[in-house]
Amino acid sequence: MTSHAEQSAVTVLGLGPMGRALAGAFLDAGLRTTVWNRTPGKDGELVERGAVSARSPEEAVGASGLTVICVVNYDAVDAIVRRGAVTDALKGRTVVNLTADTPDRARDNATWAAEHGFGYLDGAIMTPITTIGTPAGVFLHSGPEELYREHRPTLDALGGTHTHLGEDIGRAAAYDIALLDIFWTAMAGYAHALAVARAEGVTARELVPFAKGIGTILPPIFERAAADVDSGRFSGEGNPITSAVSSMAHIVHTSEAHGIDAGVMRAAEGLARRAIGRGHGTDGFFQITEILNPR
Amino acid sequence: MTSHAEQSAVTVLGLGPMGRALAGAFLDAGLRTTVWNRTPGKDGELVERGAVSARSPEEAVGASGLTVICVVNYDAVDAIVRRGAVTDALKGRTVVNLTADTPDRARDNATWAAEHGFGYLDGAIMTPITTIGTPAGVFLHSGPEELYREHRPTLDALGGTHTHLGEDIGRAAAYDIALLDIFWTAMAGYAHALAVARAEGVTARELVPFAKGIGTILPPIFERAAADVDSGRFSGEGNPITSAVSSMAHIVHTSEAHGIDAGVMRAAEGLARRAIGRGHGTDGFFQITEILNPR
Repeated sequence: MTSHAEQSAVTVLGLGPMGRALAGAFLDAGLRTTVWNRTPGKDGELVERGAVSARSPEEAVGASGLTVICVVNYDAVDAIVRRGAVTDALKGRTVVNLTADTPDRARDNATWAAEHGFGYLDGAIMTPITTIGTPAGVFLHSGPEELYREHRPTLDALGGTHTHLGEDIGRAAAYDIALLDIFWTAMAGYAHALAVARAEGVTARELVPFAKGIGTILPPIFERAAADVDSGRFSGEGNPITSAVSSMAHIVHTSEAHGIDAGVMRAAEGLARRAIGRGHGTDGFFQITEILNPR
Repeated sequence: MTSHAEQSAVTVLGLGPMGRALAGAFLDAGLRTTVWNRTPGKDGELVERGAVSARSPEEAVGASGLTVICVVNYDAVDAIVRRGAVTDALKGRTVVNLTADTPDRARDNATWAAEHGFGYLDGAIMTPITTIGTPAGVFLHSGPEELYREHRPTLDALGGTHTHLGEDIGRAAAYDIALLDIFWTAMAGYAHALAVARAEGVTARELVPFAKGIGTILPPIFERAAADVDSGRFSGEGNPITSAVSSMAHIVHTSEAHGIDAGVMRAAEGLARRAIGRGHGTDGFFQITEILNPR
């Protein structure tokens, strides 16, 4: 059970660039903020701004009712908190784990937290460090709704939009994985496009105004495709998957003619060709979700 | 040489959905529009709106100073125009080829056009059919600037923004390939994300508001990465390529744990790991352009 003082307090474990931004936002909101990092020397600026520097993770988690963890992955989380002294100090308190990892690891953590008598919420930060403490931040949370509601006022100090996705503790990580999948695949596509453009004598500077235009047309296309995918009906009218494969083949050809690896596009093209091979040539491109994950 | 009447006239070869949209926009602009398609029966609505239906491609190209071609690929272009009767009819006229294909094919066409005494411009349509005749259309052109300027008034009837990318005839196709590379890679990433989300019990409808958010953050990221890529300096501050690989590994793991092919992400991850292996782990992700296309 936490005291009143501990309820206006928060602990941040992990002081990488994101952890420091989180701690800074809590300080800006006037919360008593305790910080700790595995390698020392990261908390100087935060202490100057009023943070309490804990000497150990057990001291850190004991200082607040809520501990926010943001480290590189769940192996790093485990290395910090799955030790007797820390587990004992956490009893009756709550952890919000904003570290990115997989849904199965989140579920495993929740089981372990329940066994050790402390609350556990899993979350994901969907926007860059610079958005922390601003209205542009996007935070996803999952786990027990009551626990979320209890700590929401503290989390609100981080700014931005907070969405509770449901009681299934794996949900925030599942959204995170899916959204990072879109993001990093798009980044790989853009990097490849810049390499092909360069081989054709087109600089990134020259291409970027049009590349940004592609970014702009994606959201409405995402919206329409979502309806197709949920319904399992993939209209190819005006843009059948055969046209997509024709474009993809041009990209692979042009890339490889310049000696540029086209493995990403070849993998995507292979999925589309499998859909065509199964008789879906006049369907839309998102038929490949059925190839990836048959109902 | 074309007569004055022929200068306010235009021919459209290819009456697929895009070709019909182009011909419709020319008709709406009051141009005398002659149309032809390899398989008959596609011009009914256009003829009702005032188009002239030609009985052969040679008759079609002979009716106008400018012929716009939009078919499935350059093999289809060749099958129509690389015949004696059509080549003869084209002499002294101009072709604007809005068919999508590769830069090398565009250069080959330009050489062939010059040998046969007619003008050739290559172009690309970067926006969907529904944008034709509206301000939202984006058209790229390359080839002799004088020829472009002569026919620009006719092309303006298609609406939207027209950009002349330079005299190198392959430039429109190069931009087209690079932009389609971004587009189709992003589509593959989104389809994969929806498959992984579904396996985690998250519907496309649930994911799409956040997926659209990813689309929104891409343009400024594209802008910053362009500067890195042109300069060959890839700052990884706050987001080194090792973090990208950590995310990618989570995506691959979660995908494959559900039996979902992760070939696209595995290919992207492989490029990033090669960059790290060459000592660029603290650089930014766009270092992979150097792996793809060393200077």
